[in-house]
Amino acid sequence: MSIKVAINGFGTIGKRVADAVDAQDDMEVVGVTKTGPSFGCDLAVKKGFPLYCTFDDEDRIARFAEQGYECHGGLSALLAIADVVVDCSPGKLGAENLAKYKQADIKYMFQGGEKHALTGLSYTSSANHAENLNAQGTRVVSCNTTGLSRTLVPLYEHCGSLKVECTMVRRAADPGDSKKGPINAIKPVLKVPSHHGPDVITVKPEIEINSLAVAVPTTIMHLHTIIADLPDGHGLSTESILEMWSNTPRVIIMHGEDNRITTTAEVMEMARDIGRKWGDLHEIFVWEDGVNLIGNRLYYFQAIHQESDVIPENVDCIRALMGTEPDWRASVAKTDAAISAYYNC
Amino acid sequence: MSIKVAINGFGTIGKRVADAVDAQDDMEVVGVTKTGPSFGCDLAVKKGFPLYCTFDDEDRIARFAEQGYECHGGLSALLAIADVVVDCSPGKLGAENLAKYKQADIKYMFQGGEKHALTGLSYTSSANHAENLNAQGTRVVSCNTTGLSRTLVPLYEHCGSLKVECTMVRRAADPGDSKKGPINAIKPVLKVPSHHGPDVITVKPEIEINSLAVAVPTTIMHLHTIIADLPDGHGLSTESILEMWSNTPRVIIMHGEDNRITTTAEVMEMARDIGRKWGDLHEIFVWEDGVNLIGNRLYYFQAIHQESDVIPENVDCIRALMGTEPDWRASVAKTDAAISAYYNC
Amino acid sequence: MSIKVAINGFGTIGKRVADAVDAQDDMEVVGVTKTGPSFGCDLAVKKGFPLYCTFDDEDRIARFAEQGYECHGGLSALLAIADVVVDCSPGKLGAENLAKYKQADIKYMFQGGEKHALTGLSYTSSANHAENLNAQGTRVVSCNTTGLSRTLVPLYEHCGSLKVECTMVRRAADPGDSKKGPINAIKPVLKVPSHHGPDVITVKPEIEINSLAVAVPTTIMHLHTIIADLPDGHGLSTESILEMWSNTPRVIIMHGEDNRITTTAEVMEMARDIGRKWGDLHEIFVWEDGVNLIGNRLYYFQAIHQESDVIPENVDCIRALMGTEPDWRASVAKTDAAISAYYNC
Amino acid sequence: MSIKVAINGFGTIGKRVADAVDAQDDMEVVGVTKTGPSFGCDLAVKKGFPLYCTFDDEDRIARFAEQGYECHGGLSALLAIADVVVDCSPGKLGAENLAKYKQADIKYMFQGGEKHALTGLSYTSSANHAENLNAQGTRVVSCNTTGLSRTLVPLYEHCGSLKVECTMVRRAADPGDSKKGPINAIKPVLKVPSHHGPDVITVKPEIEINSLAVAVPTTIMHLHTIIADLPDGHGLSTESILEMWSNTPRVIIMHGEDNRITTTAEVMEMARDIGRKWGDLHEIFVWEDGVNLIGNRLYYFQAIHQESDVIPENVDCIRALMGTEPDWRASVAKTDAAISAYYNC
Repeated sequence: MSIKVAINGFGTIGKRVADAVDAQDDMEVVGVTKTGPSFGCDLAVKKGFPLYCTFDDEDRIARFAEQGYECHGGLSALLAIADVVVDCSPGKLGAENLAKYKQADIKYMFQGGEKHALTGLSYTSSANHAENLNAQGTRVVSCNTTGLSRTLVPLYEHCGSLKVECTMVRRAADPGDSKKGPINAIKPVLKVPSHHGPDVITVKPEIEINSLAVAVPTTIMHLHTIIADLPDGHGLSTESILEMWSNTPRVIIMHGEDNRITTTAEVMEMARDIGRKWGDLHEIFVWEDGVNLIGNRLYYFQAIHQESDVIPENVDCIRALMGTEPDWRASVAKTDAAISAYYNC
Repeated sequence: MSIKVAINGFGTIGKRVADAVDAQDDMEVVGVTKTGPSFGCDLAVKKGFPLYCTFDDEDRIARFAEQGYECHGGLSALLAIADVVVDCSPGKLGAENLAKYKQADIKYMFQGGEKHALTGLSYTSSANHAENLNAQGTRVVSCNTTGLSRTLVPLYEHCGSLKVECTMVRRAADPGDSKKGPINAIKPVLKVPSHHGPDVITVKPEIEINSLAVAVPTTIMHLHTIIADLPDGHGLSTESILEMWSNTPRVIIMHGEDNRITTTAEVMEMARDIGRKWGDLHEIFVWEDGVNLIGNRLYYFQAIHQESDVIPENVDCIRALMGTEPDWRASVAKTDAAISAYYNC
Repeated sequence: MSIKVAINGFGTIGKRVADAVDAQDDMEVVGVTKTGPSFGCDLAVKKGFPLYCTFDDEDRIARFAEQGYECHGGLSALLAIADVVVDCSPGKLGAENLAKYKQADIKYMFQGGEKHALTGLSYTSSANHAENLNAQGTRVVSCNTTGLSRTLVPLYEHCGSLKVECTMVRRAADPGDSKKGPINAIKPVLKVPSHHGPDVITVKPEIEINSLAVAVPTTIMHLHTIIADLPDGHGLSTESILEMWSNTPRVIIMHGEDNRITTTAEVMEMARDIGRKWGDLHEIFVWEDGVNLIGNRLYYFQAIHQESDVIPENVDCIRALMGTEPDWRASVAKTDAAISAYYNC
Repeated sequence: MSIKVAINGFGTIGKRVADAVDAQDDMEVVGVTKTGPSFGCDLAVKKGFPLYCTFDDEDRIARFAEQGYECHGGLSALLAIADVVVDCSPGKLGAENLAKYKQADIKYMFQGGEKHALTGLSYTSSANHAENLNAQGTRVVSCNTTGLSRTLVPLYEHCGSLKVECTMVRRAADPGDSKKGPINAIKPVLKVPSHHGPDVITVKPEIEINSLAVAVPTTIMHLHTIIADLPDGHGLSTESILEMWSNTPRVIIMHGEDNRITTTAEVMEMARDIGRKWGDLHEIFVWEDGVNLIGNRLYYFQAIHQESDVIPENVDCIRALMGTEPDWRASVAKTDAAISAYYNC
């Protein structure tokens, strides 16, 4: 039987999660919400996702029809027919929405824009799928935390302990955001340490981690510079770490110089060639020639596609909450194969 | 019977033309060339396009196999089995390649990086499809010239004459190019007038046109500011011009303020939603609220997706050279419908 | 006797006007206003400009002393000891401030952020110094209008008539503004025509002019692409126009290719070498190799240093209002020589 | 008696060193070299610095006169009248020039673009002035190494040992460089660790340090994110470290939020207000609210003005080589006071 998924908020993240869910054979999109009729509704119509209004407000619901869109009702109506709701609303509405989800007695997932405290439980596929099994609700962590988990969790699993410092070199604006700057400056995040690194602890408390963050004038990817201190007797080498990550789902290892992929711009070009919609890159990109283990200290760079690396995690997380697939590796394999087949061009 | 198309050069333009040809039911890709084994070969393999070597050189051909790619031979072997070759090689090889195409007695198409003088004939779908019917070879004009033709040709057809000045505000580098600047400057093209505007004359000599060009620190789209002087008695209004363009193939008219598409960044986001591979936008984007006819002088802005607006023109041009579709509007409709169906996600 | 000048608003423009006034031997800065104690006060203290509070508010005035700055009183106190006030307050306070200036019965000058309607009179040195002689108040036009006047007025004076179209390629943010974007986009100003060109009419109504504007991701200079239609019988050539501008005050003509000054970045580097404070360039920069007269139509590019080209005009305008120098060329020569000598390093 | 200083190479660094030397009362510029007549010669003429040709070549020397510049001879002639030569030539000419300096039996200083191995001795004012006293030649380290020394040396002096990791977030191009990108990407330096951090060891071998580097699309400053591990019993707090740096020459501590200086753009605006030529900032800028000591680990950010932080070090280094001022603090105080007085506007 197919899991019925509601998407509350059909924007940057919501539209991607809807597509990824639609690609799976064990779940389906039963509806997506918009605050009102707008350009984004066309995309839902094209995909055949039933439209609902974010609000239970007859006037607002009626406006959709006025603009030629069929609206199936308010959020409550959508929650009533779904097994799980993926909250992709634009930040800071968490507490308010949580109350609605609890009232509807529905499973719920928030995104990394909300705090861990809201749900008391967080999720990434490789870190803590098992702990999320059959939970009532959780939070899929942010793009940065997801990215850190991808490469750090296997290191931790091998070593048994890990101390990490990272600098998050963040894109200052999203690709479609033309309001935000800076145009020609570097902006340090003056909260030290920044919240980014420590958020990993919400999914893997055993990893010790801090971070500093700066925003820079680019719109396409974040980049992390990472220093990880391994415990004595780790038994690893630069080569064996690369081998480990090559076998890690959703991590791409490529040689930068050999492939002429020396910046995030060329990483994004490679992603466009892969053929996923929106030019997305669900994987974390690690430069093979940027990894170096010196004694117990490991240095590396990784690039993060902000709007998409969490998308497949959302699919896995649905299975965790519904308890339909207890093995995270099995879920990841299923999710990724379905997404690849979906984008067949 | 299917037209057999060879793609000489499988890079930024070549890979897109190959996809667009592959989407059609009256033509097929019989092979694509690469200079040697590299990352780009994977894309050809994935799509099932037979690989050939750009050179007729046994050593170079052998290298493909060493890297695990099946190479079907050199360029000559590819030309021998094709009806038409689309030259997508990286600039300045025109004369050399032309000799090869003539020797192979094959129809040929160059791109806008080559000069009109090379072929003595140029092409855009709406401007001069008829003149290109059954020609031996031609040149599909550049992204900018194609963009200007899209909006100016229908104006000219209505008015019977047209005098145009435009400023080309050009992206200084391609999205995947991390070498070129400037990072924080505006660069005027000190050749005045620039070559961009006058190139329109190669497809529609009746239009009088000049241009100035500047490069600016962006990687995503060009933008044209255009001033067109209509002849007395033109009988048009701002509204009727918008109506005309709404009925023009491959032109998108949208209200910027109403749709919150106020920069090229949001145009590109909209293009990503459309779902074409690489986030491409084959259409020229005209801001409805940026069009104003004052007396005989028309002002407007249009945005150009550099790496993709010429792609459907290449498909139409194949039909022109092969003489299989004399009506440009019929070809355009067929091309665009097939491309839309191809990207079904 | 020295003209007593008050500067209302000691920010980006105010601090520069204060310096330029301080450099002259026929005028002096009797005080500058700040809204409260802040970093900018240090600069006033260092220069010896008496500090006043923007408001006549005892509490606010007292705050300066709390931070260790001597405040000489509120705006009224400053106006009482000045002959003329240069309003450099941050936009949209014009009407409110005008009332105060009228009440104080003091001569006043606004900047280009205010509309012409506020004063009914506008000013640039070369366009209409004579008309501003002994006026009670006026508006020094914006950086763009000042820049257009510099090159267009001498052309008009020679030709007797002039029709102009220009595209303003604008820096999207100021150098010290890290909030505003876009980072990677071109933004057309969807008001067509834009207000920039027509503002020239406020100082030289005989010039016919329109403009289109786009904002681009750079912080250092604006660039204008200009098309000017000269009347029949103009008797000019590209060379004679260059000669004319070489003899025009505050216009720099340089060959871009020969001097490797091919973008606004290199123009700014040249400005830093000149040694004016803040790396300012009071002059309009015209690329010699970007000027071309074809028949009656003149094409050229010019670069504008947004925060400084109006500074020397403010000094000339003070003399116009006070009636102390009726000859604009004499005032310009005096202003510029004093500024050059002031920055003697 | 005044130290006679030759500047070999009057470009970005050379022109600044010449100005700084000219400001001192114990040294003078006896000549500067240019490869040929060009725009840069005007600046030398304006300042009264005698011009020499970089080469001992009569033809090249003669070309200066043809362009109206007085050239006093070739490099040999300049070296013959100087006590010390500051090599500011554009990289990679070190070995060749060193031979000439040795032949001329003159003291010599290279810049950080050359390797330590060239001279076997390197210099920053606070790290090793004493070791450079009366040396025949040395190398003033790069902008980044100078910046790291400024804040790390006093920490080391206090603690007795120090282990440091830093991420260098580098501006990808100089302000006047319009050729280099990337425009919209982050570029990791795939040599891990990068050379930047370890170069500190050439002036203070006791500090353990590594670094990672990325280039970002900005032209105005570098920014370092730094993690320093202090030894047990260090006795410091965040506050006492800020106090220590407040008393360190050429370090500026400012609160970012309070002063609205939250990015390198605002730092540069502040520098323009200070009034040094070229808008230079000789000091290292540390955000007060970006410093945090947690246990033994210190986190902080600092911004580096690439083309100017080494300028005063060059002046101090001249005194070191000539043996005229053995106390580095006395030299620094003298250098900085003279520079401040020089720019009196």
